[in-house]
Amino acid sequence: MSYYIINGELTDQISVEDRALNYGDGVFETLVIKDGQAQHWDEHMDRLERGCRQLRISVPDKELLAEELQQLLAQQASIRSEKRVVKIIISRGVGKRGYKPPQETKVTRILGVFPFPNYPQQYFEEGVKITVCRTPLSCNPVLAGIKHLNRLEQVMAQDEWGDSNIVDGIMLNSDQQVIECTMSNLFWVTNNQLFTPDLSNCGVEGVTRTNILQLAKELQIHVIIGYFGMKEILKADEIFITNSVFGILPVSVVDDQQKQPGPITRKLMNELT
Amino acid sequence: MSYYIINGELTDQISVEDRALNYGDGVFETLVIKDGQAQHWDEHMDRLERGCRQLRISVPDKELLAEELQQLLAQQASIRSEKRVVKIIISRGVGKRGYKPPQETKVTRILGVFPFPNYPQQYFEEGVKITVCRTPLSCNPVLAGIKHLNRLEQVMAQDEWGDSNIVDGIMLNSDQQVIECTMSNLFWVTNNQLFTPDLSNCGVEGVTRTNILQLAKELQIHVIIGYFGMKEILKADEIFITNSVFGILPVSVVDDQQKQPGPITRKLMNELT
Repeated sequence: MSYYIINGELTDQISVEDRALNYGDGVFETLVIKDGQAQHWDEHMDRLERGCRQLRISVPDKELLAEELQQLLAQQASIRSEKRVVKIIISRGVGKRGYKPPQETKVTRILGVFPFPNYPQQYFEEGVKITVCRTPLSCNPVLAGIKHLNRLEQVMAQDEWGDSNIVDGIMLNSDQQVIECTMSNLFWVTNNQLFTPDLSNCGVEGVTRTNILQLAKELQIHVIIGYFGMKEILKADEIFITNSVFGILPVSVVDDQQKQPGPITRKLMNELT
Repeated sequence: MSYYIINGELTDQISVEDRALNYGDGVFETLVIKDGQAQHWDEHMDRLERGCRQLRISVPDKELLAEELQQLLAQQASIRSEKRVVKIIISRGVGKRGYKPPQETKVTRILGVFPFPNYPQQYFEEGVKITVCRTPLSCNPVLAGIKHLNRLEQVMAQDEWGDSNIVDGIMLNSDQQVIECTMSNLFWVTNNQLFTPDLSNCGVEGVTRTNILQLAKELQIHVIIGYFGMKEILKADEIFITNSVFGILPVSVVDDQQKQPGPITRKLMNELT
């Protein structure tokens, strides 16, 4: 049984000349498979396309990606778990030595299926512990917003904590402005207003973040997107983190500061599909 | 005939679970093989080690890398070129999904041998054309100085020019301070003083750059390392770029501005080993 399909072939081997390996020259998506169906497929495909356009990588055929995902899942039919995670990597393709994108490359399509990480029910009810990372997030408007493969900052940040009870870490830019967590977006509530950082200069625009911003609009919750320091976050009434795998997780502890999951977090958790 | 040796095996295939591919989680070196001998091997191994330590990746055995290089060259004995280029990639290794470095990983060693790029003799005599890139270099002291695998900024910068006569492009940080070129370090001479950018916050500390700084000391050329804008570079008497493959190349054109290769550039070119 293969856990990967690469350019339509069931294999876990890839050319060492792929530009994803040499330069991180590509983008990726992580999404949930529930009862055989990819969740929020269109939104993920839209972000993948935005990322490819931003990096001037040919946009892959979405129908083909959907077919390859079904092919991969079909030969894993013996796995009977309700939920799984799929990671899709699109790289600029195989190239010779040198940063310059070759004029003619065929993008590499990698799809991998993984077990769903089991977040305890308690996390959703009582909230999770997060920390504040020392590794700064560097800013580059050329790369901001998209989920590209240059992820060393996130690797270094996650390497900062050893406590397995810590679920994620807040990352700041070099001006001490809060941007996001290593693998999730950050929201907080102060005086019934919902806040989340501006991602124009760095950070990943999560699909769940976008869905929450839309949902807040529908629920007539006032949203403020901007640059804030840790002081504002620590003063908040509620804090929560979001990504495509766990959805929304309330935050109960930021380092040594206690927080309570609050009504706006609960409302968004109940309404988010 | 294989052009690659991966963990001691002559192959060009690698696991799709390698963290170099997923996150750019590793470092690399590019060096010249001349008459079968790796040039400046010790200096490259020192920088590789510094990079691994900075990223908290286990430092690979240098003797083993040297043996694997010889093994790769031995089975390419039919290639009779005086010079070749070797690229060595050290990644944190294979891992499961997630940024966090696994507690136990075996680093991946990749060695590849490539033809030597033929820079025309005219380039060394009359100088080369360079440009100024719009893609900014992002700053992160956690990653500065080392030759890590997160190279999307260089990819995007090199994608800016189509003119094949342009050899490299100057990159600036978001404060409009000059840092380096996409694949080389930058030097200039004003009033017989040698200038090069400070790389404490971003950029790659080239082995050739370090050797030139040492050589300048020996030749009693006064060196100033700091932060400068394009205005200072364009006013310079001489400009040159350096890397391990071409050594020193004088710059004759920066976009529409003409420059002449000058005496200090010539002196350093003559003396650099």
